[in-house]
Amino acid sequence: MDWDRELADQRQQLELADQAHLLRFWDELNEAERAELLGDLSGCNFSEIMQFFHRAMQMPAPLEQQMDEQMEPVPREVQGSVTRDRERLPEWEAEGLLQISENKVAVLLLAGGQGTRLGVAYPKGMYNVGLLSRKTLFQIQAERILKLQQLASEQFGNKCTIPWYIMTSGRTMESTEEFFAKNSYFGLQEGNVIFFQQGMLPAMTFNGKAILEGKSKISMAPDGNGGLYRALRNQKIVEDMEKRGIGFIHVYCVDNILVKVADPTFIGFCVKQQADCGAKVVEKTNPTEAVGVVCKVNGLYQVVEYSEITLVTAQKRNADGRLTFNAGNICNHFFTLKFLKNIVKDYEPKLRHHVAQKKIPYIDDHGQHIKPDSPNGIKLEKFVFDIFQFSKKFVVFEVLREDEFSPLKNADSQNGKDTPTTARHALMSLHHRWVLNAGGNFVDENRTRIPAIPSLKELTDVPIKCEISALVSYAGEGLDKYVSGRDFQPPLIIDEKGVRELTANGL
Amino acid sequence: MDWDRELADQRQQLELADQAHLLRFWDELNEAERAELLGDLSGCNFSEIMQFFHRAMQMPAPLEQQMDEQMEPVPREVQGSVTRDRERLPEWEAEGLLQISENKVAVLLLAGGQGTRLGVAYPKGMYNVGLLSRKTLFQIQAERILKLQQLASEQFGNKCTIPWYIMTSGRTMESTEEFFAKNSYFGLQEGNVIFFQQGMLPAMTFNGKAILEGKSKISMAPDGNGGLYRALRNQKIVEDMEKRGIGFIHVYCVDNILVKVADPTFIGFCVKQQADCGAKVVEKTNPTEAVGVVCKVNGLYQVVEYSEITLVTAQKRNADGRLTFNAGNICNHFFTLKFLKNIVKDYEPKLRHHVAQKKIPYIDDHGQHIKPDSPNGIKLEKFVFDIFQFSKKFVVFEVLREDEFSPLKNADSQNGKDTPTTARHALMSLHHRWVLNAGGNFVDENRTRIPAIPSLKELTDVPIKCEISALVSYAGEGLDKYVSGRDFQPPLIIDEKGVRELTANGL
Repeated sequence: MDWDRELADQRQQLELADQAHLLRFWDELNEAERAELLGDLSGCNFSEIMQFFHRAMQMPAPLEQQMDEQMEPVPREVQGSVTRDRERLPEWEAEGLLQISENKVAVLLLAGGQGTRLGVAYPKGMYNVGLLSRKTLFQIQAERILKLQQLASEQFGNKCTIPWYIMTSGRTMESTEEFFAKNSYFGLQEGNVIFFQQGMLPAMTFNGKAILEGKSKISMAPDGNGGLYRALRNQKIVEDMEKRGIGFIHVYCVDNILVKVADPTFIGFCVKQQADCGAKVVEKTNPTEAVGVVCKVNGLYQVVEYSEITLVTAQKRNADGRLTFNAGNICNHFFTLKFLKNIVKDYEPKLRHHVAQKKIPYIDDHGQHIKPDSPNGIKLEKFVFDIFQFSKKFVVFEVLREDEFSPLKNADSQNGKDTPTTARHALMSLHHRWVLNAGGNFVDENRTRIPAIPSLKELTDVPIKCEISALVSYAGEGLDKYVSGRDFQPPLIIDEKGVRELTANGL
Repeated sequence: MDWDRELADQRQQLELADQAHLLRFWDELNEAERAELLGDLSGCNFSEIMQFFHRAMQMPAPLEQQMDEQMEPVPREVQGSVTRDRERLPEWEAEGLLQISENKVAVLLLAGGQGTRLGVAYPKGMYNVGLLSRKTLFQIQAERILKLQQLASEQFGNKCTIPWYIMTSGRTMESTEEFFAKNSYFGLQEGNVIFFQQGMLPAMTFNGKAILEGKSKISMAPDGNGGLYRALRNQKIVEDMEKRGIGFIHVYCVDNILVKVADPTFIGFCVKQQADCGAKVVEKTNPTEAVGVVCKVNGLYQVVEYSEITLVTAQKRNADGRLTFNAGNICNHFFTLKFLKNIVKDYEPKLRHHVAQKKIPYIDDHGQHIKPDSPNGIKLEKFVFDIFQFSKKFVVFEVLREDEFSPLKNADSQNGKDTPTTARHALMSLHHRWVLNAGGNFVDENRTRIPAIPSLKELTDVPIKCEISALVSYAGEGLDKYVSGRDFQPPLIIDEKGVRELTANGL
């Protein structure tokens, strides 16, 4: 093949952007490698990338002290809470279900990241966390959508759809789509599962040179979960939402096994408050917990990341003893379509990228692969919460961590936090509580009742193994008829096939 | 040797107590085994043990529903809190130091348990949790006592002593005493470290037969941490305290790496409230956390264990969103000597033992060793908190978990909770915060400042490795002169030898 023309074009553009070094191994490459490199290059608009780079690097380093002085907590009047506003929850839930029944609600899943820290080479949503059912995160979430459609349809008497927009990245698009197709979309209609792809950006040296990870391969990474907005624009997703008549969008991250997809209570709360933008949060109780906090800075809402906060501010407490900045961000948001349109069209393009210093493996001038010990470059990222500042009416909804948040981030071999084991236990503990709250009980092999809070010492696997399919219950509702007054010996599964004690069945 | 006389005596007593089965392998035993068995038997007063057994078993099974209805939370007026009463902390601390300076304060360590779940065959206090200093729990606690003596002496100008009473058991007495002697009592005066031994009781079948774990060995276990009171009486410890002029005793459990031994703030609070009995607690935030809660039942204070509480009660919340029963017991108590004397003399002997069903390895009639799969017997235990009900003026002091409570219970190989790793991290995280709060900072190998909340992703070992000897600071005080305005590259040690960055020193 004759590369001359294409190479000449690329070289000219790269020289303009001061990136000609990316071609320095060209003469050594074979045909396939040359195709690979030109492929990578054609995915990069370097004149734009260099603008991103220079704007991001101009940004002054965060002035912690100053930031601290300007931080204010979220005022109570814009907060809803599942513990402090219990009497209003039914009203909010009904409103959310109404909106769902009128086909006004879509969900948007952020699934562009890879399971690198989890130690797998495929998208996290495809991970089997070892539940009794062997269900993956994607399937769990799909079934919650199915159940919610059913609940809303039953309650309001019109068949409805919650379209599911799934943002993947260059690294996860193909395998994600294949996985859904292979699994018949888990019972959802194919046309209501809409995949789109976020952008990728090259890793850069501190001097603005894109980094080669191999002789024919640029080191590329997704442009952060805030790449969402650019992708929504470029791939005309907003138009698709408009065509479908969507009013409200629930955005969440793939890794939370407890996520209440399209949570009607959260949506109903936001709608009733006439909010254009909302964040679901959990209470931060330990000052040094590695979680960002939703707060006001200079009168505008934002998430202050844990790496940006000083200890003095993180330790601040109110008179009631609670942390002053306790609205822990869990990447779980509400947007009106109107707000999202404004963001996508006008606001987001003006936002600068964040700079994350990273240890980026690279190939040196001699063709040696190097794994650096200290940060040697940066990744450019936007965050999904960068746009809170543009909200005209921002609200926060506080939920219980044990009911709604257990992210899957690390492999079991790592430090024990946010692992498949903790995710699995969080889900089974929730379902255990559902059974107890619906009047059921658990007994051991001698039919002796197991306490509601089982001892860690006595059981080989805690918590009690109990899994309830979302096809049976979205949030614990409707279980009385299956469990009330009954004793179960775990493991217990309740799903569309019925109530099954696995031990009793010899499984 | 001729066993006839001794054997005849024992046999008669055993027959009276219906325990003659304990001699069923006598004819097969060699001399050494016969001595062992008679030794075990001579440690058991079976007429008393059978009284314990029958009284314990008569107790009605806890009626959960009823208990629930009678539970009331601890009223605010008997609570002190490090977060809600911040302005009063200096006053309480000063009172506590004053009492210490006047030799009125003793500490009493509960260290009768073995490190079975931790996977070691020696007392837990001898465990090295892998700190930079390689210090054991015993040494950490000893140095806190030393420092507190020094602080109180300096502040009030009279040299003072905090005697340290250490309750061991038949299983830990010898090795504990040896360990202290070998380590020269960690700088404490030998005469001020007083060892005593709690009782042991045989494991029993449900029918009241003591269990043989071998042909010549009775299955024995310590009689619970509430065995404290009987041991105090039998070994005349109360008299020793009286002789020394002690007024107040701080009781705690060996496994908490963060324990503030003789915490002057806690003691000062209790003294100022004229309490005779106090419990230090941490806030329980998750309804199904396996922790007992301090509360009132039928108007009397007690700890309701997690296994006794229903989910409905565990989930109850106040209007402010907090759990209603949130006073998590951490086995950290205050007693006046007067109260303790009454307990030891009058009240405790009347208390029934708790019954804990256990899987107890045993030897069957054919001499086979059996490891049962399900509970086959019971252990009789009393708990240190059983005597709260006798308090005339009971108070509760709430502290922060991240500052004061991180128990060592399980091996690292287990489920990741309360392990050497979590204990080590808790201590290093606390000391990290001390440095930041005293104006110091941490930097990485490039001298870039590490955020106050370091990222889990970027560091190979979290938290930042930092250890401050109790000989330098008891609770973070007095560190300014070592760290203010300085940047440190971890690992950092501050001890009696000075301030040392281990990496910089090539260690």
